[in-house]
Amino acid sequence: MKILLVGGNGTIGKKIAERLRKDHDLTIAGRSSGDIKIDMSNESDIDRLFEKTGMIDALIVTAGSAPVKPLEELSYQDFKDGFNSKMMGQILLALKAVPFIRTGGSITLTSGILSHDPIPSGTVLSTINNAVNGFVIGSYGELLNKGIRINAVSPALVEDSAEQLSDYFPGHTPVSMNKVVDGYVKSLKTRISGKIIDILS
Amino acid sequence: MKILLVGGNGTIGKKIAERLRKDHDLTIAGRSSGDIKIDMSNESDIDRLFEKTGMIDALIVTAGSAPVKPLEELSYQDFKDGFNSKMMGQILLALKAVPFIRTGGSITLTSGILSHDPIPSGTVLSTINNAVNGFVIGSYGELLNKGIRINAVSPALVEDSAEQLSDYFPGHTPVSMNKVVDGYVKSLKTRISGKIIDILS
Repeated sequence: MKILLVGGNGTIGKKIAERLRKDHDLTIAGRSSGDIKIDMSNESDIDRLFEKTGMIDALIVTAGSAPVKPLEELSYQDFKDGFNSKMMGQILLALKAVPFIRTGGSITLTSGILSHDPIPSGTVLSTINNAVNGFVIGSYGELLNKGIRINAVSPALVEDSAEQLSDYFPGHTPVSMNKVVDGYVKSLKTRISGKIIDILS
Repeated sequence: MKILLVGGNGTIGKKIAERLRKDHDLTIAGRSSGDIKIDMSNESDIDRLFEKTGMIDALIVTAGSAPVKPLEELSYQDFKDGFNSKMMGQILLALKAVPFIRTGGSITLTSGILSHDPIPSGTVLSTINNAVNGFVIGSYGELLNKGIRINAVSPALVEDSAEQLSDYFPGHTPVSMNKVVDGYVKSLKTRISGKIIDILS
């Protein structure tokens, strides 16, 4: 399979790359490194990305961010920042990938546990993660018509981020990187579609 | 209770107004009619709204829209339109209401069945409705600190829209207006918070 992995040098992305590299034709895109550099909040960067890759079998996105702030400090701009990056960045990648994905191919996006298990200061991420899940739920039926599947992996706090983020996630048990990567492989290689693949410890 | 109802002349809003008007001090805001006219996609309109209402006990929002289009026709602008109206319009109303809601008060937003039960051409609404649910899930803990509750009512296709919308909602059984209004009253008058109140037929 020819797989495009956007965010392939991030905490989760690099573990997916390790797993998939030996058996697949893997292209990595990222903000500051990778085979192709893109700013996923820039629509023309995304157009350029697929001109470079040509036809692929699968898109996996593990990139995107959103502000983490106490509720009383949240502004319109904070939500716009989350919208432009983790929400619309992923949605635009998915929409623009469709003409470049071969029949039988798949799209896998990344949401996260805050969609249903919130933390203080996590409101923008709870909002954006659910939006990404909603895009998957809303679009999978029309994508089946094109022979393309779509899912989101929704990981808990992951082991490789636990030391850095544990103060934000009190009482959250980190999930192993291996289990998280399994979620992406499940989306990639089974025939499920329209699913939110929760990866919990 | 002093209640601000944004969207009080819409299909759902006017039924809520009928139920609440006799026992409460009800202020209705809307795009083209009501006690106060506002464009909920305009941040300064929202600021002006709360300057006019002063302190309230409850905010209910039944306003907001998003484009309905086949997946292959969806553009960045379609998602931005949904973001600015039904998603960020409601979120900004909630955030900016907080300093004007008395202790013990509540916020009730509106999402919808497409968050989990999709229809063709409904991808933007599935995305936006889930984002609204995510905002409720993400914010309720921090709002409890301020003595304010927040919920979303997520109605199925409602009876009063069924004739106009039934072609878009094949196989969906319309829910009675009375049952939908019950959802808003439950959010307003019980002590639940952080809940998505599904109103199914």
